[in-house]
Amino acid sequence: MDSPEIQRMIQIFSKLPSLGQRSARRIALHILKKKEQILIPLMNCLQDAKEKIRFCNICYNLDTYNPCNICLCPKRDPQILCVVENVSDLWAIERSKIFKGLYHVLGGSLSAIDGVRPEHLTIDSLLERLSNNEFGEVILALNATIDGQTTMHFVTDKIKHLTKKISTLAHGVPVGGELDYLDDNTISIAYNDRHYIFG
Amino acid sequence: MDSPEIQRMIQIFSKLPSLGQRSARRIALHILKKKEQILIPLMNCLQDAKEKIRFCNICYNLDTYNPCNICLCPKRDPQILCVVENVSDLWAIERSKIFKGLYHVLGGSLSAIDGVRPEHLTIDSLLERLSNNEFGEVILALNATIDGQTTMHFVTDKIKHLTKKISTLAHGVPVGGELDYLDDNTISIAYNDRHYIFG
Repeated sequence: MDSPEIQRMIQIFSKLPSLGQRSARRIALHILKKKEQILIPLMNCLQDAKEKIRFCNICYNLDTYNPCNICLCPKRDPQILCVVENVSDLWAIERSKIFKGLYHVLGGSLSAIDGVRPEHLTIDSLLERLSNNEFGEVILALNATIDGQTTMHFVTDKIKHLTKKISTLAHGVPVGGELDYLDDNTISIAYNDRHYIFG
Repeated sequence: MDSPEIQRMIQIFSKLPSLGQRSARRIALHILKKKEQILIPLMNCLQDAKEKIRFCNICYNLDTYNPCNICLCPKRDPQILCVVENVSDLWAIERSKIFKGLYHVLGGSLSAIDGVRPEHLTIDSLLERLSNNEFGEVILALNATIDGQTTMHFVTDKIKHLTKKISTLAHGVPVGGELDYLDDNTISIAYNDRHYIFG
């Protein structure tokens, strides 16, 4: 523990999301023990990422290419735009394989507490995209948090004269979810939006 | 997600201890978003660690120096040797600040299931150390797992002619621990080793 290099490594790791002091120590030790198998590959991939990965100038996705693979893909529907808060949300939707249109990553959500104002997000560039392109539908796939919903209302207000349709994701019981663990709001919404399966 | 560099990064992170796919994705994204503040410092510290950190030839601790800082420290008691399974255990004992002697890191514990045999650990070099130095006491601070205890018995058998005293850590209720959450074995041992505080 005396070595400043090890301590620095633990410190950097401990500040990454989902890691604390203890897991950072375990990871640092694991990496140091396996220099050939882990430390060197990790260094090389960070070096690669540093040089190659950049934000797409159109949708603000992260990719080796700019414009990114999704923006350039001819198979994707250029008529439908999905607005998300972060690249992780884009990845989540891509994993579900349900959406084949284009994306716009806002870079976060409006937050009075964290001091995130509209100019900190890519809203201006979203307005520009909508002015220059004819999108049949804009899906606001923002998080169902207070900040996400505030952002949704703000963005809706800004873009409603620029597109024909604006939609949001449905609320309800997640697949595999147990009612007992759900909050009252979700249950109320799921109840109000119930589907008739008979009669 | 299309970018092979990002996928490779997620894959490497997801194999680190205490991380899975989801946390690896979060970490990769966090690092990519903050190139200056995180990616570059992390790369530099990995580079530093790669070049500078090595195993101590005497006790098998990890340090910038070989022999390590602990082995070289004149303030430490050279009469007492603490044998641990891994460097993380050495760190844990150092954090407690209770021990001021020298260490010997075995590099793991004997395990029939994982195929770890005596020759995979630093037992031979422990025997050599004990033959060449006069240690008044050897503390076997091995984990209280089946493998740890097997290793303890094996090592005890090997070293008992080379030292005057061999001790192990006490078992019992951990400080802050609730009896309700403890296993029966620990409670039995804690009961048998109870301390009289009156009469």
